[in-house]
This record gives sequence, C-alpha cells and structure tokens, in this order.
Amino acid sequence: MDQIDIEVVADPELDEPALVEGLPGVGHVGKLVAEHLVEEFDGTLVRRAYTTEFPPQVTVDDEGVTELTHAEFHHVDADGVDLLVLTGDHQAASNEGHYTLTDAFLDVADDFGCERAFALGGVPTGELIDDDEYGVLGAVNDADAKPELEDADVEFRADEPAGGIVGVSGLVLGLGGRRGLEAACLMGETSGYLVDPKSAQAVLEVLQTVLGFEVDFADLEERAEEMEEVVGKIQEMQGGGGMPSEDELRYIG
Amino acid sequence: MDQIDIEVVADPELDEPALVEGLPGVGHVGKLVAEHLVEEFDGTLVRRAYTTEFPPQVTVDDEGVTELTHAEFHHVDADGVDLLVLTGDHQAASNEGHYTLTDAFLDVADDFGCERAFALGGVPTGELIDDDEYGVLGAVNDADAKPELEDADVEFRADEPAGGIVGVSGLVLGLGGRRGLEAACLMGETSGYLVDPKSAQAVLEVLQTVLGFEVDFADLEERAEEMEEVVGKIQEMQGGGGMPSEDELRYIG
Amino acid sequence: MDQIDIEVVADPELDEPALVEGLPGVGHVGKLVAEHLVEEFDGTLVRRAYTTEFPPQVTVDDEGVTELTHAEFHHVDADGVDLLVLTGDHQAASNEGHYTLTDAFLDVADDFGCERAFALGGVPTGELIDDDEYGVLGAVNDADAKPELEDADVEFRADEPAGGIVGVSGLVLGLGGRRGLEAACLMGETSGYLVDPKSAQAVLEVLQTVLGFEVDFADLEERAEEMEEVVGKIQEMQGGGGMPSEDELRYIG
Amino acid sequence: MDQIDIEVVADPELDEPALVEGLPGVGHVGKLVAEHLVEEFDGTLVRRAYTTEFPPQVTVDDEGVTELTHAEFHHVDADGVDLLVLTGDHQAASNEGHYTLTDAFLDVADDFGCERAFALGGVPTGELIDDDEYGVLGAVNDADAKPELEDADVEFRADEPAGGIVGVSGLVLGLGGRRGLEAACLMGETSGYLVDPKSAQAVLEVLQTVLGFEVDFADLEERAEEMEEVVGKIQEMQGGGGMPSEDELRYIG
Repeated sequence: MDQIDIEVVADPELDEPALVEGLPGVGHVGKLVAEHLVEEFDGTLVRRAYTTEFPPQVTVDDEGVTELTHAEFHHVDADGVDLLVLTGDHQAASNEGHYTLTDAFLDVADDFGCERAFALGGVPTGELIDDDEYGVLGAVNDADAKPELEDADVEFRADEPAGGIVGVSGLVLGLGGRRGLEAACLMGETSGYLVDPKSAQAVLEVLQTVLGFEVDFADLEERAEEMEEVVGKIQEMQGGGGMPSEDELRYIG
Repeated sequence: MDQIDIEVVADPELDEPALVEGLPGVGHVGKLVAEHLVEEFDGTLVRRAYTTEFPPQVTVDDEGVTELTHAEFHHVDADGVDLLVLTGDHQAASNEGHYTLTDAFLDVADDFGCERAFALGGVPTGELIDDDEYGVLGAVNDADAKPELEDADVEFRADEPAGGIVGVSGLVLGLGGRRGLEAACLMGETSGYLVDPKSAQAVLEVLQTVLGFEVDFADLEERAEEMEEVVGKIQEMQGGGGMPSEDELRYIG
Repeated sequence: MDQIDIEVVADPELDEPALVEGLPGVGHVGKLVAEHLVEEFDGTLVRRAYTTEFPPQVTVDDEGVTELTHAEFHHVDADGVDLLVLTGDHQAASNEGHYTLTDAFLDVADDFGCERAFALGGVPTGELIDDDEYGVLGAVNDADAKPELEDADVEFRADEPAGGIVGVSGLVLGLGGRRGLEAACLMGETSGYLVDPKSAQAVLEVLQTVLGFEVDFADLEERAEEMEEVVGKIQEMQGGGGMPSEDELRYIG
Repeated sequence: MDQIDIEVVADPELDEPALVEGLPGVGHVGKLVAEHLVEEFDGTLVRRAYTTEFPPQVTVDDEGVTELTHAEFHHVDADGVDLLVLTGDHQAASNEGHYTLTDAFLDVADDFGCERAFALGGVPTGELIDDDEYGVLGAVNDADAKPELEDADVEFRADEPAGGIVGVSGLVLGLGGRRGLEAACLMGETSGYLVDPKSAQAVLEVLQTVLGFEVDFADLEERAEEMEEVVGKIQEMQGGGGMPSEDELRYIG
C-alpha cells in the first residue's frame, strides 16, 4: 500500500463546493458538525482515503464485519449548496504525515473544484460554558474573508489561539493558502473536557449563515441533553451540587 | 538490507492452503496456536521474513549460536489440509511498518495460492475464565463467511472488540479484504494477564471444525497445568486462598 | 509538499555576507540576537523555508490571519556589512531532519555567497549571572578563526560545552566544515532558566567587534528590565529576598 | 548528506584482517577494548562514517575546535596481526538505522577483506564481580567457531543472554552471517553499573589468545584503580563499609 491511497467511490459533478473538514480534535466539535451534515442531508460517500499514517487497525461493525480504518469524503447537498465533507477517526501519526495527508486531501478538494474551505474544530476555554454564550473563534488565511465571517458572529481575536492551529485543520489553511485556496478555521468554544454538541451547534449556525442553508438541530440537542445527564449524575455521585472537578470531566466523552 | 527481505527456504506446491497468522498478542493465544500446529504436524519451514521493522537483534539458541530475528512461514499438512502458518516473536515497530509488513506477508500467501486467512489472537476479559467457558469471538471481512464460523461456535458481537483489531491481525483482514482475500479473525477469550494455553485450545477447536482436521491437545493441556501451578503458588505465597490480584497476574507469562 | 521547500521572496546581490543563525535554543539567546538585528536594521525578507520537519501548524497574527510555520532568511545591511540572518520558531523534529534542514539552509547561504557563518546560542550555567559577567563561549570548525574571536573577548575552553553542540547550530559547524564554510558558534552564558536579553547583548557585542558594525541596544535593555521585574515579583511572592529557586525560574520565559 | 557517508581517510592493504567492533554498550566494555587497541598499537584512522542516524551534534576538542559526530575505523597492527577496529560514541537512533548502519559497516569490512569479526560488549550480572572471576560469555553465528573460543576460556551458555544481543553487535552477527562473515560476540561479565576496565581486560585476554598478539594492560589497570577509588569514596560517604547500593552504582561512569 502507498503512504496514501485515495479510493474513488463516486464521482458526481459538484457546483463550486465548499470543503468542510471535521476530523477529531478538541471536544470533537469539528467531527460532530461534519457527521451531522452527512446524516441530516443524507450525504453520498465519494472518496475513501487509506493511509499508513493511520493506526494499523480495522473497526468492527454491528454485524461483526471489519473495515480498514480510513477517512471519508461525502458529497452533501445542503438545500442546493454543495459541500464536500471530510471526516474520519484519526489525525496523522507524524509531523510529516500531517503534511502529506493534508496535501492529498486538498488534491481531492481540487478535483471537485473547491475554491474555499472551512476547517472546523474546538477551542478549549478550560471551564464549562453557559448555554447562551457559545462563541465561535475564527482565523483565515486571507484577510478579505473576515468581514463575511464577522457578519456571521465569528470573533477574531489578536494572536488567538495562542498556540496556533495544529493538525489537519491548521494545514488546510497553511497548505491551502500556498495553493490559492481561501480557507477559514471555525473554532467553537468548548470546555475541552467533554464531547460538546452545543459547541458544534454554534459552529453549524455560522456555516448556515455564511453558506445559506438550514439544518435541523434536533439530534445535536438530544446528544447535548445526554451529555448534561452524564454531568448531572457525576454531580450526584459527588453528593453535592457543585460543578464536577476538572479531573472528573476530563475523561467524559 | 531492504525494509523487508523474504528468504525462500522451500517451495512446495500447496493445495488451496489457508493462511494461519499467529504473531504475538494478547495472552499469546495466536502464537500458541500457530506454534502448536507447526509442532504437532511437523511443519516444514518455507519462508523466513527479515525486516528492519523488527528490533536490531539476534537470538541465541541452546548451543550459543545466533539467529537474526525474523518471522517464519511453515507449511503444515493437517490431516491432508494444507495450512500456511505464519509466526514469529515481534509485530512491526511503526504504523507504516505494520502496513508494509502485512502487505509482504499477504504477497507470500498469494504466492502459495491462499484464498482464505485466519488471523488468530486473544481478546482480554479482565478476569480469570472458568474452564468450560472459553468463548471465541469472531470478526470477518466478508459477511458471507459468518454462518460457517457460527456453526463452529464462534460468537459475533456487535461492535466488538470495541477498539477494533490492531496490528498484523487487523491488517490481514483490512488489507486482505482490499485484495479479495476472505479473512476471519478468531479471538480466544482470555484474562489478558497470562499466557493462556486454554484459550489457544478453544481457538484450535474452531479451526479443527472449520478446516476439518484433528490435532492432539496434550502439550497445550500440559502447559495449561503448568500455568495453574504458577497461579497456585502465588496464591499460597499470599497466604490466602483468594484469587491473585490483577497486579500479581499481570506479570506472569 | 517536499520535505523542504525554500520559497524565494527576494534575491538581492549581497557582498560577502556572513550567515547568522539564531534558531530557538537555551535562553533563546540566538533567536533574540537574530531578531534584534532584523528589527534594528530593518531587514528584508529574502527566503521562507517550509518543511515537514516543523510541526503541522499555522500561527495566527494580530488580525486573525494565519501563516504556515516556517523559518526565514533576512538580508540585514548592518552599517554596510551584509548579513544573511536565519531565524524561526522551531528546530527539526528528528535526527535526520536536523541534517537535511541544515544542509538546505547551507545551500541558501551558498547561493548568497556566504563564506563564513556564526551560529548563535546560549550555554547554561545553572545559576543567575551578575550584570558585568556575561561571558561568551566560542567553538570553531577551523582553528585559524580563533585569534580574531579571542580578540573580541570570546573564551575558548577545552572540551566545552561538555555535551558538544547540538541541533542546527552544531550542524552549521559540522556540515558547514565538510563543505568548506568557516563557522563559529558563539554561546552567551545564561542561567538557562530565563529568556535572557543580557546574554544576547553580550553575543551581539562580539558580533559587532568581529564584523564591524554598531547596533542600538535599547530594546534589549528594555526587555532585560522586564525580565528583572518578573524575577523581582517572584521573589516578593516568596516573601523573602533570596534568589528564586531553580524550579521557579525554570518556567519563566 | 546521505543517510550514511563513509569518508575514505587512508586505504592500506590489510592481510586478512579481523573486524573488531566496540561501539558503546553495557559497561562500555567493547568501547574500552577497541580504544585500548587503537591507543596501544598506535592505530591509523582509515574511515570516518557520518550518518543521519547519529545525533545532530558536533563535539568540541581541547582547543575549542569542533568535529561532526561520526564512527571511526582504525587499522591496528597488533604484533603483525591486522585488525580493523570500529569505534564511536553512538549507536543508531532507530531500528531501521541499526540495520542500515551495520550493513554499511560490513561493506567497509568487506572492502578490507575481513573474513571474521568480533563484536565486543558487556553482559550485566547485576552485582559487583570479584577480581579473579571476570568471565567472558560468547555467542557465534557459526557453530564451527566455538571450539577455538572455548579453548580461550570463552563460556557458551544455552539461550544466554536471555534477551538476545541487540544493537550493532547483534547485527554484526546476524547480518554478517547472512553474507557469509564468521562472527563472534564476546561479552565481558560486568556489574552493569560502572564503566568496567577489568571486564574489558578479560575480553582483551580472549582476543589475544585467539588472534595471537600481546598488549600492555597498564592503562586499563590504572583506569580500574580509578574506578575503585570512586566506589570507595561512595562507600565512605555512606559511613559504612558495605557495598554501595544498586542505585548509587547505577550513575557512576
């Protein structure tokens, strides 16, 4: 097997699609958004990406049938807006692999004619967030893209996130920029301790506004309620009403 | 030396052999089964696989003579059923190496005309298992293969093992499937703390039923008794009749 | 992307320039010197070096605009003395990468006609240093270069630093020497616990003397005062006048 | 720079030389022997081996002049017996690197016409050894080589060392054997906690007997006395006459 092997599953013509990247990361925000789009709009699998940068592993499905680990591109038709949604279970295993993998992902986006990209993720705040205050932090590889995002309530803060943006999301902007792809990173604020469907919803609201579609949030809201029950139970077990400690939260999800 | 160097030791014609993979893993179940088959049926060494993915190491035999570490393929004639048995002392050292190594192993299987494969291993239960309850968990890369295995008392459980199947065993299914090789993983239940000859016996019983041969279990039973003595001595040292703790067991074997 | 990708930003003719390397290291001494030269003499960016040896990361600027992580070469005209100043935020990620990266950096230096090089860094003393005693330790890849440096108050001590010189600085001397580039390493004494502008100033004074230019130190002096305030506050928090402990200092900067 | 770069320093005709490998390892036994041979017989440097598998580092000599880290081959004329002595400060950084490096070292040995090799090292016993009991454990890649070594008081013990022989020494036997080079590993017993000149002397005595030369041991004896003083001082500091504890010994050397 080559370092990366892109399998063509389907090859539809897309109309100026936006690449939407949602690989695993902080709070699994990006992954939740990407999977929600694929499910709600009944996306079509178009590419599988196998790579020696992923763990040597098969997953087992509900029938006991295995599948070699890979990332997937789905075509999502969101109210007539074409999206090319990238999701999966892993980032690359090495520095070099992140570069090679992102380059291969951007080649796929080129093939489908993507001229802009959204790299989705979470930005950890270190504390639980009140319901109405899920902000979305943005970063762009082209300053011209800021006004449209600011109109959609994306915040830009000088030098944040302080450590930069790492992994495939960062390189979608960095390598994308070098090949002329306008890319934005949308980072939902999240505690950083929990899988965070509410943060995912905040990011989705930005995407809706910017790209002009509407999606049902019921499933994400349900998952958010489940997470709240989990937190509630931990608090009960503690025998107190206070917030769970950071150590308790860190392992939920 | 190349990354992988397959040395041809013998080149017999085999009749639709099954690949049986038994590299080290949980409870050394797969390795015990593979080595038992080679010993009981007096297998013939056919290939040595040297690779820079294995530790830079020689082993020393009972005469003080060294051998460069490698994996081995043996031809085993099991009551007229041809098996190509892969065993050794190591998995690969890197993600990429697991892929490259498994690909090379599957090339050998192709050369001998294997059309099906059994990847053998253990699945940890976290507790000691009663004698009559050594189940065998299965996973397949082709759903059509399930009925035959279920008839041989292999259990299929939705989404188990939860973490998927990693290492060469996982890739025999994953990469094998991509090249049209029907492969099953047979995982003997085992505590996970001990080298487990009883779990190996359970897996062997499945192989016997599916492939249609019979093998003597005396040696495995003897090793099982030895393991029980070890556990018994630990219990005595504890001055109590209770089960040894997980920490005690973890290092036996 | 290739392992290393050197982007040409500008291509001025330089007059026998000296390569000045100031990548991150002990006390960030080399980096402080290199950045100070670029700022004070208003250097011109001439090359960007992208490499898969750097983390897969973009930085975010004060406008929320991202930049793919890279090292930079600036042309600095220091009172008529041409310098080619290399700086950045990272060393390589692997042994092999250090070699490949330094080779590529030396190719750039060759292109600009550099015939000598200064690799800048710090040497840790393990204790805070009195103001007037910031020595500069030297090492050269050609013994003929010593007298000129000794005249500029650089000290040469047998077998020091004891562990040799590691990273890009070491290889500028080691690989540089193999291709005939005369290179010196100038290591400012520093506690090793703090970003150390005073140590940077001591190294700059050597460069001034050897290369024949003068640079304003006001900015470095200001940063040094800021560092002193930080140390002072820690001492106050301790409620005592004693030196902060090593553990306290280790994380400042 | 290539992964390995062998620099030809001199190219003498050697008469059926034996390769003697003494890279760093347990008790630095092999390195002590190799360096002692080069010093006592005033060896001639014939090859430098640079490699990206070594740390990115220069050493600094007593004049403050740097040298890129490398391994060295010396021709040693030991009373008319030609030796090709390999020594250095490092092993390879990766599994794969050990294989590639040893292959390159064996190519050099081939070029000089070596038909046998001695890989030197130490085998840890875990306790200090009485003066007259420094045994030498052997392993060979060809059983025919055993009688000669047994006559020189080398011991062969079934399956020892239990973990096999790792690193360049192991591969000199393993890869050497695959290319028809008769190789023996001579492992001096040593506590494993100290640089051990007495163990080195025991190994040298075997080499003398087998190859037919005599070497002065005065320098090794002097170093052994220095080590004893160090151990003595530790015992005094303990205020007792007992042996230093393992933890005390582990860091000496």
